[in-house]
Amino acid sequence: MRILVVVASQTGRTKRMAEAFAEGAREREALVEIVASADAGEDQVLGADALVLGSGVHMGGMESSMRVFFERMAPLWMQGRLVGKVGAAFASAGLGGRGGAELTLISLLANLAEHGMLLVPMHGRLDRYASGGCHWGPVAWTGARAEGVGPSDDHLAAARDHGRWVAECTGRWLAGA
Amino acid sequence: MRILVVVASQTGRTKRMAEAFAEGAREREALVEIVASADAGEDQVLGADALVLGSGVHMGGMESSMRVFFERMAPLWMQGRLVGKVGAAFASAGLGGRGGAELTLISLLANLAEHGMLLVPMHGRLDRYASGGCHWGPVAWTGARAEGVGPSDDHLAAARDHGRWVAECTGRWLAGA
Amino acid sequence: MRILVVVASQTGRTKRMAEAFAEGAREREALVEIVASADAGEDQVLGADALVLGSGVHMGGMESSMRVFFERMAPLWMQGRLVGKVGAAFASAGLGGRGGAELTLISLLANLAEHGMLLVPMHGRLDRYASGGCHWGPVAWTGARAEGVGPSDDHLAAARDHGRWVAECTGRWLAGA
Amino acid sequence: MRILVVVASQTGRTKRMAEAFAEGAREREALVEIVASADAGEDQVLGADALVLGSGVHMGGMESSMRVFFERMAPLWMQGRLVGKVGAAFASAGLGGRGGAELTLISLLANLAEHGMLLVPMHGRLDRYASGGCHWGPVAWTGARAEGVGPSDDHLAAARDHGRWVAECTGRWLAGA
Repeated sequence: MRILVVVASQTGRTKRMAEAFAEGAREREALVEIVASADAGEDQVLGADALVLGSGVHMGGMESSMRVFFERMAPLWMQGRLVGKVGAAFASAGLGGRGGAELTLISLLANLAEHGMLLVPMHGRLDRYASGGCHWGPVAWTGARAEGVGPSDDHLAAARDHGRWVAECTGRWLAGA
Repeated sequence: MRILVVVASQTGRTKRMAEAFAEGAREREALVEIVASADAGEDQVLGADALVLGSGVHMGGMESSMRVFFERMAPLWMQGRLVGKVGAAFASAGLGGRGGAELTLISLLANLAEHGMLLVPMHGRLDRYASGGCHWGPVAWTGARAEGVGPSDDHLAAARDHGRWVAECTGRWLAGA
Repeated sequence: MRILVVVASQTGRTKRMAEAFAEGAREREALVEIVASADAGEDQVLGADALVLGSGVHMGGMESSMRVFFERMAPLWMQGRLVGKVGAAFASAGLGGRGGAELTLISLLANLAEHGMLLVPMHGRLDRYASGGCHWGPVAWTGARAEGVGPSDDHLAAARDHGRWVAECTGRWLAGA
Repeated sequence: MRILVVVASQTGRTKRMAEAFAEGAREREALVEIVASADAGEDQVLGADALVLGSGVHMGGMESSMRVFFERMAPLWMQGRLVGKVGAAFASAGLGGRGGAELTLISLLANLAEHGMLLVPMHGRLDRYASGGCHWGPVAWTGARAEGVGPSDDHLAAARDHGRWVAECTGRWLAGA
């Protein structure tokens, strides 16, 4: 099972969430690759069983490099080539980000939905849901960039939990084919 | 495979979308039950492999009876009993509904996400996507209530298409368990 | 200047946010009335210069009593009688509410938008924005209901801040007529 | 009164919506400037009384050049320099765009909300609301790009209507200062 994590992370904090997510997924036997949104290519996306998107919350929404990635992948949408893959999302929000994190997650999932993927939300039975979760996906609620505060241990644990769950769901989905 | 369609339909138009959705799902061997949001009970929800929510768009969002249904099902969320089921949504919007249909679909899916269900969006390769679809689910764009205009044939065909797709996904998901 | 605060508050926590909002608005000479969503009537709404909606976050969205209120006010929408009033929103979210608070605020504002009101978001220069704010409006991030934790002092201060700002905006809007 | 319309329009269709919006606003004595999102500068934004954002709907959300514009304006948010301006939005959606237009409008408004602007929705008493409107702002529902179908006369009329309304609101807001 191959999981591709595409991450837009200007400050490196969302990248740490991506790494925690990957750790969890690997505990469930997934082969996980993390790639920056600016570098992700068509072949990587086509080769994955699950596509997971993570973005920093910036000015009320996702980082622009993620939207550029979406536009580069538009031909795959025209051809319907991602239909039936598995999708999930996570985010990291700094100062004032409380207002944009949920809309960011919904907007990330919107793109995966448009491609016809099955979406895996983060459910409330996962250990760290209360401290680092949101039902659309894990979120790190950090401070302002200048403070240098990264995701907390709880946030990272939530990302790890979700990585496990997404890998479990992807494995089951593949087994049913 | 059992699919429960819970529908909030003050004017009967969303109900017609539910029936079309059910027709499509039955073509893929699903046992489909349609129940009004006011009548849906815990046992019905627990017995279903997939829970599909349909609502008329009213004052910019879903009908209130659907939210009442969500609140009655809150104990199931506390117990995590719907985790891992399959979820999907559809809507019907009248005059001015263009502004609320997408937010209604997202809000319906938000509840299913909170319960930890896998969400099945409507993908763009389905025949009627362009005329009656939206990536979150099928939508009937009807006129004002007074005009008595129901979902068009295209809208109903889109609902039928999505019913088939949701049933196919549910079957595959069950087979992978 | 008259401000009507309509509040859906099953646990009483959102009501405390309403009271803090009202305190702030009164410091700017507003006459503020707080009414439960179940009790709010057409005349109260028509008599207000600004309509402010507050709801607890429940199962991923607003409380059902608020949507029932929206439906009772639908005739005012048909007649366009609230066009040009001022609108704002706030929320209170418990366990897992992080995932629903922003969508709740957007959904509350969606109804005010549909009525044609000017929307007043919460801006980041207000003192307590970072600890109790979100750009759509103030949010109390409390714990689970059983823990009996209410809005913190910071959350209440954010609501008070926003009350002042909404009253200032309403006053300016009225003065320009 | 100065209104700046920032438009992201890969295919030129949203640009036609911008021009119609500008026509309407000029009928209400506004000085309107239209600028592409890629070219819009800080000084233009600072000099405007109202900032109006229009974007094509692309892969379920706004065009990436608009998000790049948001990021370039982030320093203005840090300094709170746009607080108290007036904001509005519109969109143009092609094939399958029904699913993304509302989320695009909400996401455009989210950025304006974060800056602390008053948001002017499109109200249902405007003539073309039913055919070209959405309560968050006017939308052109066009066909696929290849078909070369632009905004219809009704869509353009809706944009013009909203241009008038936004200019009226901006004038009133300035008069009340």
